[in-house]
Amino acid sequence: MSPFPSSAPHTENWRHLRLVIEDGLATVTLARPEKLNALTFGAYADLRDLLAQLSRERAVRALVLAGEGRGFCSGGDVDEIIGATLSMDTAQLLDFNRMTGQVVRAVRECPFPVIAAVHGVAAGAGAVLALAADFRVADPSARFAFLFTKVGLSGGDMGAAYLLPRVVGLGHATRLLMLGEPVRAAEAERIGLLSELTEEGQADARAAELARHLAAGPALAYAQTKALLTAELDMPLAAAVELDAATQALLMNGQDYAEFHAAFTEKRPPKWQGR
Amino acid sequence: MSPFPSSAPHTENWRHLRLVIEDGLATVTLARPEKLNALTFGAYADLRDLLAQLSRERAVRALVLAGEGRGFCSGGDVDEIIGATLSMDTAQLLDFNRMTGQVVRAVRECPFPVIAAVHGVAAGAGAVLALAADFRVADPSARFAFLFTKVGLSGGDMGAAYLLPRVVGLGHATRLLMLGEPVRAAEAERIGLLSELTEEGQADARAAELARHLAAGPALAYAQTKALLTAELDMPLAAAVELDAATQALLMNGQDYAEFHAAFTEKRPPKWQGR
Amino acid sequence: MSPFPSSAPHTENWRHLRLVIEDGLATVTLARPEKLNALTFGAYADLRDLLAQLSRERAVRALVLAGEGRGFCSGGDVDEIIGATLSMDTAQLLDFNRMTGQVVRAVRECPFPVIAAVHGVAAGAGAVLALAADFRVADPSARFAFLFTKVGLSGGDMGAAYLLPRVVGLGHATRLLMLGEPVRAAEAERIGLLSELTEEGQADARAAELARHLAAGPALAYAQTKALLTAELDMPLAAAVELDAATQALLMNGQDYAEFHAAFTEKRPPKWQGR
Repeated sequence: MSPFPSSAPHTENWRHLRLVIEDGLATVTLARPEKLNALTFGAYADLRDLLAQLSRERAVRALVLAGEGRGFCSGGDVDEIIGATLSMDTAQLLDFNRMTGQVVRAVRECPFPVIAAVHGVAAGAGAVLALAADFRVADPSARFAFLFTKVGLSGGDMGAAYLLPRVVGLGHATRLLMLGEPVRAAEAERIGLLSELTEEGQADARAAELARHLAAGPALAYAQTKALLTAELDMPLAAAVELDAATQALLMNGQDYAEFHAAFTEKRPPKWQGR
Repeated sequence: MSPFPSSAPHTENWRHLRLVIEDGLATVTLARPEKLNALTFGAYADLRDLLAQLSRERAVRALVLAGEGRGFCSGGDVDEIIGATLSMDTAQLLDFNRMTGQVVRAVRECPFPVIAAVHGVAAGAGAVLALAADFRVADPSARFAFLFTKVGLSGGDMGAAYLLPRVVGLGHATRLLMLGEPVRAAEAERIGLLSELTEEGQADARAAELARHLAAGPALAYAQTKALLTAELDMPLAAAVELDAATQALLMNGQDYAEFHAAFTEKRPPKWQGR
Repeated sequence: MSPFPSSAPHTENWRHLRLVIEDGLATVTLARPEKLNALTFGAYADLRDLLAQLSRERAVRALVLAGEGRGFCSGGDVDEIIGATLSMDTAQLLDFNRMTGQVVRAVRECPFPVIAAVHGVAAGAGAVLALAADFRVADPSARFAFLFTKVGLSGGDMGAAYLLPRVVGLGHATRLLMLGEPVRAAEAERIGLLSELTEEGQADARAAELARHLAAGPALAYAQTKALLTAELDMPLAAAVELDAATQALLMNGQDYAEFHAAFTEKRPPKWQGR
């Protein structure tokens, strides 16, 4: 439970996602396999609010984002989203596009690592969701397509023009966002888009294994590592070094650092408390 | 024609470059093959003003930058530029170096994709021109040399110390700018400096093909993708996500997005208007 | 000697490092081979103050940082540092962590290239020291481990969460800093962490050769290239281009640029003065 609960109610019933939480590990599955897990307005809204709830409540120490069926996520649904946005006014369009961006910010800002388990297609908003994750674990069937220009939109959607150059460099990012062509697993690995390439059909299993490893580890150290990676993309070196110093001074007062030293001295594995 | 013409006259006669415009596709050729297309004061000035004119007039939807003869561009001419700068005073030196930087900014800020077609040498300012382009299409004869330190100058010339780390990472960029050694096509591809490696002698043809593809596409979506990639290198994540939201809301009111949906529904290819 | 000496005394006796200066080339060796060159409070403090002294005095034109014995550097000493920090108060912890960050800033900000010669382990603070260098020359025995989370601390230590994404991209950096697993030489080369991979046992020799090459070159051009690479990571494009213009205008008034032109005209190698 959150150490500082507000009046905001806890929700168990996420209608647009499948959620399983077990031993500090959350698995969120996009589960509309008949539509290649195309995102609906409800799915975006649920992702945004689920991540906020999990960030508040601190019961989760790692999160896997996966897709059911033939692929990871084909992006915004052509009928339910593209069709619907065509009759929206300016304020509604801005609300929708801000919501999708809030999902990406929530993935980058939640205090636990997020692992995208990718097989098959990760297209449009599905590709950006994977891009925003801390780890991208993919099998050889994976293909990423930032296909926004193919529907007449900007390749800079949901922070993709910010994130992709910082992951694969400006040259590859320009090519991927401008042309919208699919990037297969081998190329994705070569250019640094993948954290790990698994055997065929093993992305979900390997993502779960990595998540269990992270959930069993020093959660506060991971949370601060993620927060600093995110923040220091936007900071000058001198400020980053100062932030690191304050963060380490803080963690050196923590239980896990003392536990490491005790365990090392006693030649046993540390028992992490995440604090 | 520009929707908002000023009194600035249109120029057809670019004396220091060869320019062909056809079907929305501009091809700019550096054409002093006897000097490996070494740049002169006039060539820099023409590049700066040509890109400004093309940006204003909106008749061009993609631009290829190529070199005639044995190579792409050997950089600033040793006699006409290095020799001349030795007798310049401080204000003149600043004017010259600002001009070369303005060319790079014009390449990054023009509202159409720029494709460098590179064969043979791309050295000094020639390497930076290619670096500033959105796409670098090169054949196996290509070699890039950021050779500024070899003439006693800073490797940070025309934005190279800004751009190169963002394309190939800080480690490779330091090595390339500090040592000034040539990078051959295979290494350039491996470190992310190339967008595409072609067969021998095919850089020009493949660059033209890519440019025709882009010129036939949703020009406004491409222009915004490029603008966001350029701007978001200099923005924090939260601001980038907000810029993306506003941009997509804008483009969702545009003709090409509606055309995509109509074409998808009618199972036909979209007819892009670029607006 | 420094052109502007203050009253700060010059030190010859660095007790926690081995220092050799010869022909403008400084070699700093971490020399506690029985402890895999684990860093002590004294070693951090000596690195910080040595780099400051060398930056002031201008007698050094390149610096090699190497490790004696089986590896480069195993990071902060478990007994002398981790043990000691457990009984420090908040102000002392902040002083210590600021000092380690000052070493990294000193490596990035000194006006000569720093070459890390890496064999065997480069772990924790040892990995970050190598990361902060301008060049990482390593042999096949090298392995880098940013193992901070394994001791319960943040992977963002001494600027690592700032530097590593800018060297290898955000995806690899997240994996390396979050998991703390060792990265062997082949992977380090593949992801852009190495400047050069040498034959077995040749890292020190090759680093010395590179340092001699740099020490014989146009020192002011190298210093400005390094300063601009460091500064322009934190600057927008327009400002970077302006900084480049001012820097080149300055160097075009310098002796080395004129010397290059004279040597080129006379078809002889230039004699660099470093000014």
